[in-house]
Order: sequence, then structure tokens, then C-alpha cells
Amino acid sequence: MNLSNRIFAQYEIETAFPLEEAIATMAGEQSSGTFLQVPGETAELKEKSGAQIEWIRETGSVASPSLPGAGIPKGESRPVWRRALTQVSWPIENMGPSLPNLWATVAGNLFELQQFSGLRLVDLTLPEAFRDAYPGPQFGVAGTRRLTAVEGRPLIGTIVKPSVGLSPDATAALVADLVAGGIDFIKDDELQADGPHCPFAQRVEAVMRVINNHAERTGKKVMFAFNLTGEIEQMLERHDLVLRHGGTCVMVSLNSTGLPGLAYLRRHCQLPIHAHRNGWGLFQRSPHIGLSYLAYQKFWRLAGADHMHVNGLRNKFCEGDESVLASARECLTPMFQGEGRGCEVMPVFSSGQTVRQTADTFKGLGSPDLIYAAGGGLVAHPGGVAAGVRAMHQSWQAAMSGIDINEHARTNTELRQALEKYA
Amino acid sequence: MNLSNRIFAQYEIETAFPLEEAIATMAGEQSSGTFLQVPGETAELKEKSGAQIEWIRETGSVASPSLPGAGIPKGESRPVWRRALTQVSWPIENMGPSLPNLWATVAGNLFELQQFSGLRLVDLTLPEAFRDAYPGPQFGVAGTRRLTAVEGRPLIGTIVKPSVGLSPDATAALVADLVAGGIDFIKDDELQADGPHCPFAQRVEAVMRVINNHAERTGKKVMFAFNLTGEIEQMLERHDLVLRHGGTCVMVSLNSTGLPGLAYLRRHCQLPIHAHRNGWGLFQRSPHIGLSYLAYQKFWRLAGADHMHVNGLRNKFCEGDESVLASARECLTPMFQGEGRGCEVMPVFSSGQTVRQTADTFKGLGSPDLIYAAGGGLVAHPGGVAAGVRAMHQSWQAAMSGIDINEHARTNTELRQALEKYA
Repeated sequence: MNLSNRIFAQYEIETAFPLEEAIATMAGEQSSGTFLQVPGETAELKEKSGAQIEWIRETGSVASPSLPGAGIPKGESRPVWRRALTQVSWPIENMGPSLPNLWATVAGNLFELQQFSGLRLVDLTLPEAFRDAYPGPQFGVAGTRRLTAVEGRPLIGTIVKPSVGLSPDATAALVADLVAGGIDFIKDDELQADGPHCPFAQRVEAVMRVINNHAERTGKKVMFAFNLTGEIEQMLERHDLVLRHGGTCVMVSLNSTGLPGLAYLRRHCQLPIHAHRNGWGLFQRSPHIGLSYLAYQKFWRLAGADHMHVNGLRNKFCEGDESVLASARECLTPMFQGEGRGCEVMPVFSSGQTVRQTADTFKGLGSPDLIYAAGGGLVAHPGGVAAGVRAMHQSWQAAMSGIDINEHARTNTELRQALEKYA
Repeated sequence: MNLSNRIFAQYEIETAFPLEEAIATMAGEQSSGTFLQVPGETAELKEKSGAQIEWIRETGSVASPSLPGAGIPKGESRPVWRRALTQVSWPIENMGPSLPNLWATVAGNLFELQQFSGLRLVDLTLPEAFRDAYPGPQFGVAGTRRLTAVEGRPLIGTIVKPSVGLSPDATAALVADLVAGGIDFIKDDELQADGPHCPFAQRVEAVMRVINNHAERTGKKVMFAFNLTGEIEQMLERHDLVLRHGGTCVMVSLNSTGLPGLAYLRRHCQLPIHAHRNGWGLFQRSPHIGLSYLAYQKFWRLAGADHMHVNGLRNKFCEGDESVLASARECLTPMFQGEGRGCEVMPVFSSGQTVRQTADTFKGLGSPDLIYAAGGGLVAHPGGVAAGVRAMHQSWQAAMSGIDINEHARTNTELRQALEKYA
């Protein structure tokens, strides 16, 4: 067996069946098997194409099933639902280095199997062939820094708010305030792509006029991630439009777009791809079914994302800080060894972010390679958006210098105001 | 307010917050709001672009939250988690008739909101503009019947098994047995697309040689759904190859492909699209987070699916029969009124199907417009695959004539053998 040609997936499982029996059913379902022995499934074919159980570690048990619909062994009158961590592997020959078909293999029918009252894909290790077959991020951290000319500190970003409802001109007016205030990065809200009240083309024209004028005057080109989510042709056309207007970033809703859609855009793309994970809660909210971000983000990094959302510390959603930081660190961890093969992407902290989370974010990530995006936490600053941007800069200066934020606020008015506002 | 220009989505929710407050937070998050009032979110903008709560029906309460990570109201010492069904609506002007952006709106960030310890999208009603913007199924029931020349009864189908591991020639040899036995429909397994051991092009050539020869000899063209799941260019090339070899169907793994990928294929496609929902368990398994199939399948029907998988009665997975039948009936229910605008698709019953579920399937669906696909339940027939096909025909004759299956088996040897085998 050539280890380098196998896919390894880790699952957290819960089952009333003997562990090995349940996992073997899953391995069969996701490779050469069906629910009955069929004539063509010879021992040789099983050996060649069957998924293998690498190891099983029992982790505990519960007295009732965590998900409905699961079965119990025949004749079992007092079932116990045991939990385990297990690793299953497949030969790459089963599907070749194809992300959509990998998804069908490691995250397909198995979630519906009666054997399990809990099943989560928690990690994934892929053979080098996937890296050879996919382009990975085109810009990543270094490319994003180059385009924004921001070095040695996080990119300070914001989101166009209200999320939806502004006209192109109103959006551009907001952007004018933001760029004047010294922001590095702005993104469309994921709800705004090409709505009739704010058509994509008119928004790009209006916004890039502001950004280009500012760049000509000051030398600072603010990166705006235009949400081009849409049909395939629309996404390519919209990319070309952004490029033509001198824009430096496009944004995609991953779960709306799909892996082939993102990979297709990436191969056409000449700009960083800001990857938004909206809808991620579907995969993450239940502790009993779904995917870990550890596994999830590897698909999109290979397909070509440059920036990946990771939520933020003390966010308005329900993810804990440990999980957020683990996701963010993973974005900066190489997926493959070798120069330029790591597929590192810039983590994007967003959701309820204010000046108050910068120190813990810096401490937890151990790197300034991130985009720190605040919506209401920046533009609702009592001194206006420019003051909001300055407050964020001041907060990050404190965080990165190890200075107490309240101490730093004594001599920095906007930070002080922000601390009062976002108490 | 023009009702016909609004999107209506129903959710099952669970929250420790006052119902209206929690739902208003969700409506805000998914439209014009953020977690703080921002300057641009005027009353006029809210009125124009804000999502609206249409109604709320409390359905019960539980003593502990069903999902972790949810918050409780400040100062609440004895929280109760109330459940409700609610309908929220959006003006189509927020996103335009775009399925990927609709997904971001009705199935986006809301799943992560702290306000909810349970949130499922259970139904969706779309304005006519979506039907105008999307092609819908190209073949559907009538087109599939025309291509297979099967009228007045279900298409009897099977799946190439072993799922993965057969060479193109071995696949073709299996197909030769199946078509000789009188099968109407065969599909690739979702795990087999273009694996190195069974390349797509060679499989199509080998299989279509068999199917075309059989059609020349007998006049019966068996429909084979070739799984072309892959990158965008690959899917188009593979479609063209199938078409060139006289094939009559292509298959796509929906969750691997994404909405824009399917819509792009559809616009290029000259063949029915057999839509496989593998990975559906991710959305369906938890009663507390996810989507109903009622909502889910509407996206894919608009985007262009012709056949949609609905699991099967007494399946090997964990879905109950009521749910399977509700999904299948929905596939045959028009989404929009007007000639040719209903987007009806052929439901595909599959997973652990044998001769034993035909009567209940026919009774439950109230229509013979389905594909009845059996893998092991057909090819593992003790008399071989041809006998398996004959047994299935005999079973459906009984089901559709209201004859007891055991009675019918007295004079039908293959059915009798099947009943013994699949006891």
C-alpha cells in the first residue's frame, strides 16, 4: 500500500452497533459495497477499492441516541450508544484527484446510514495528487499584502452596511468616507451581489471611481471585495468588470457557488478571491452531524480561495473562541509541503468585531496575517467612520505592542470613544 | 406590497428569547441590519429592504436547548426554550432572481445566530421571476418517458454495483446482462465518475456499445445515467461525449456540484439530468438544524434537474417512509402555475429497494411517474440479473393491479425467488 496515494478521513461517530461493524458498513457504503454481497464484489476488488478502517478509539458512551432515525442491533434489548474517533482511508484510484468526487466519497451517503446516531467528518489528509491537480490560492497572504501595501500588521477591514438596500451611489458615498479614514479593505455584504436596487456593474463603477481617485491622490489602493456570487458566466463577466475598473478583489459565497464553480472562477481569475462561508452553520451547529472547519476549508483552499472567513472572537454568532482560533490557525497551516504548495490563506475575522477583541485575536493566532473586518463595530463609531478606522488602528497598535488597551486609550481619543461605545 | 414579488420562507425555530425578538434579529441579519444600528439604515431603507415577519405560531417548549452555543436573555435565571413555526418574507429586489444569492439569504448566516438553539428552513415560496430566470427541467417526466419509451408504469432501474472498482469492460459486461434482462434505466454509482481504474470516456464507450447494439437489435434504448460530476469544463466535455455516443442521460452529484454548476450544465445540456442528492444527510439528519427536502429540491428543480433522488421506502438509511413519500410527491407537484412552468421532476426511489416495497410505493405516491432503482435488491437475485429484472416487473404488475404480491408470486417464478431472497 502506497500511503501517499491514500485519502485519510477522521470521523467522530456514535453507534449502538459494535464499533468495527458500524464503521465497516460505512467504509463499504462509501467504496465497493452495497447492502448485500453482489456477484462482482470479489475479494480482489475489495482489496483494491475497498475503504479501510485505519484505527478506532472509543471515547465514551451515552444512554440515548443523539440523532433520531438510527437503528439498534437485532435482539438488543438494552442498547448503549458508544462514541469513537476513527480514521478511514481510500485509495485515490477510487475517484482520482477530484474535489467534487472526493466530497461525494467522504461527505456523501454515509451521513444517512442507520448505523449512526452521530457522524461528523473532523479531519482530512489528502495525497499530493490533489495539489498537483488544483491551483490553490493565487494570492494568499503575500499577494494580498502586495496589492494593499500593508505589511507587518493585520488588514483593517469593514463591510458595507446596511447589508442590503443602498444604491450604488450611496455605497460609493460610504466607501468615500471609509477610504478617507484610512481603511485597508472593504467587502460587500454577502446579501448584496447584483440586486435590482444595487446592480453589480453600477456598484463597481461608482465604488472604483472613489477608490481609484483616492489611490491617485494618496498612493493607497484600498482593496474592495465585490460580491460576484451568481451564475458561472455572470461570475466571469463580473470578475472581468472589476479587473477593468482597477479593482483588486472579488468575493464569493462558497456554499452558494460550489466547488466546481469556485475552481472554474479561480482558473479564470486575476484577482484574490475572498471566500465567504455564509451558511456554514448548517455544517457546524450540531455536535452530532456535519463537518469540522478543519476538513471543510481544505476543499476550498485547494479550489482557489485566498481569504477564508473564520468568524471572530466573542462574535454575535454561537461559535466559541477556541474554535474560531483553531480555524484561523489552520488557514495559515500548510496543507502540503514544498515551496508554494501549502495553500495558506488569509483568515478573515468578522462578526461583531470591535476594538475590544484585537489583543486576544493577536495572542490567539500568533500572527498578524489576518483581515480584521468590523461592520457596526467600526462604522457606528460616534465620531463617524473615519474615527472608527482610526480607533481600530489604535487598538491594533496596542495589541501588537502588548500595551493595555485602556492605557493606550488615554492618549488616543478615537480608541477611547470606541471603548465607550462598544462597552 | 406586491405579494408576487416577495420570497416567503418558513422556519422551525427554538429560542430562549421572546419569539418576535429572536425572529426579528434573524430577519435583520438576513436583510438590512447588523448588530448595531448604523447610520445608513434609515426607516425608509428598512421599509424597502428589510425582511418581514409574516406570522409566528408557537408550537411548544423544551427545558433545555437542543443545540449548543445558543444564548439566553440577559438576567434570565429560568429560561425556557420555546419552539415555533414562522414565516419570513423578503422583497425580491434584495437579491434578484438568483438562486445562489437566494441561498445566501434564506440559508446563510442565520443558522449561526446565538438567538437560536434550533433553526430549520422548512418551506419556500418563490415569485414567478425565478421561473422566468431559470430554465427548470428540460425533460422531466414526459421527456424521460419519451426517451425510454416506457409509458404507464415506473421505469425499472438499477445501479452499477460494486459501487466502485469495476473496469470499463467489466461495467459494460454487467450492463449487457442488465439490458438483456429488460431493464429500463441504469445509473453509475455516485462514487464512480472518472476514477483512474474506470475512466469516464472508456466507460461511456464500452457501455454505449452494449446499449446501442441492444437498441439496434430490439428497438429498446436503455437509459444510462453517466455520472459526469467533476469540474465545469469536464462536465461539459463529458456531456458531449455521452451525447456523441448516443447516450440519453447524465448524472450529477448535486452537493458536490453547486447551484451555478448545475445551472451551467443545464443550459449546455441536451440530455436529462439525473440529480443525486448524496450528502443530503448533512442537511436532514438533525431535527434542529438544516433544511427540509421540500425547500431544498426547489432550488435544484429550477436550476435544471430532471430526476431527483428521494430515498425509498424501508430504506437502508434512517429516513422514515412518510418523509420519503412527502419528498416524492413534492417532486411531482408544480412549483409554478402555467403550461410547462411547474418544474415537475421524476422522483427516484433508491436505497435498499427490492420487490417488497412496490405496492406501498405506488399507493403512497399515487402515480407511476417514478424511477424505481434497486442495486443489490435486483442484481443479487438468485437467478441472476435478468431474473432480478423480471421479478421487479412482476412485482410492479402486482402493485399497479392491486394484486397481493404473494398471490402473484405463485405464477411468477422470479418474483417468488425474489421474495425468498429478500425476506
